[in-house]
Amino acid sequence: MKRAGQVRRVVATGTFDILHPGHIYYLEESRKLGDELHVIVARDANVRHKPRPVIGEAQRLKVVQALRIVDSARLGDATDMFRPIREIDPAVITLGFNQHFREEDLKAALRERGIGAEVVRIGEYSGDPCTSTRKIIERILQVRGNPELVPGDRKGGA
Amino acid sequence: MKRAGQVRRVVATGTFDILHPGHIYYLEESRKLGDELHVIVARDANVRHKPRPVIGEAQRLKVVQALRIVDSARLGDATDMFRPIREIDPAVITLGFNQHFREEDLKAALRERGIGAEVVRIGEYSGDPCTSTRKIIERILQVRGNPELVPGDRKGGA
Repeated sequence: MKRAGQVRRVVATGTFDILHPGHIYYLEESRKLGDELHVIVARDANVRHKPRPVIGEAQRLKVVQALRIVDSARLGDATDMFRPIREIDPAVITLGFNQHFREEDLKAALRERGIGAEVVRIGEYSGDPCTSTRKIIERILQVRGNPELVPGDRKGGA
Repeated sequence: MKRAGQVRRVVATGTFDILHPGHIYYLEESRKLGDELHVIVARDANVRHKPRPVIGEAQRLKVVQALRIVDSARLGDATDMFRPIREIDPAVITLGFNQHFREEDLKAALRERGIGAEVVRIGEYSGDPCTSTRKIIERILQVRGNPELVPGDRKGGA
């Protein structure tokens, strides 16, 4: 349905609560699937399937906008997640390895609404131990929650 | 001492443990003072004046390198903090609002080593409540350490 020479837009989505290299990897892999990378950052009120973000939506958006690889970033719609997708009109929508949507469900929902974008799941980044915000927060709780575990921390003495 | 037309390099430094808009503000303000922004990211082993970083140095470096405004980023030297500064030869070195160096001490140390860079302290970012990694971690410990405080968290019921 796309005309030759048309810009191929890719949409990536996420909470991007505490930015880490797993996010950068997801965005880089997404960007490779087209010409422009558009990011939809989840609204605070819409993050219901996991603990609420630590960082507010306006701040999360600013950090995503500061990334070189991101052509455009915006907050999601509070009530209709398909509205920004219709506005951007992407050729591809990517899912991160731990995003809770099932590809088939998302594809069906897009088809129902007449949106012709492909859905591509990006694999997990394997380079580092902290590949998700959840793991980073677990590490903070584990290490900082108990000052005795932190070798260089003043509270721990030494 | 700089020739006309020479590139004016700015050096910004920091741990950049959990990237937040306070960091982006610091880097943007630093970038305005010259033509190229070079960032020196603190080595894990050299972060001694505050709790150890949650995120490892290689990951912290990758996230800083992904920022549009950063021309070049590298890890600090393990033993000589002035080595990368000599290599970059900046016109300006900036300090963040909460960096522990005193300007006068840093200026004296630079003069002693024949490094002619200016030292500029960048003010605090006032836009958001979470303007430092310390405050973000405090918030994580406060909110996530006690599931009853998290309204939308499954652990909290509802």
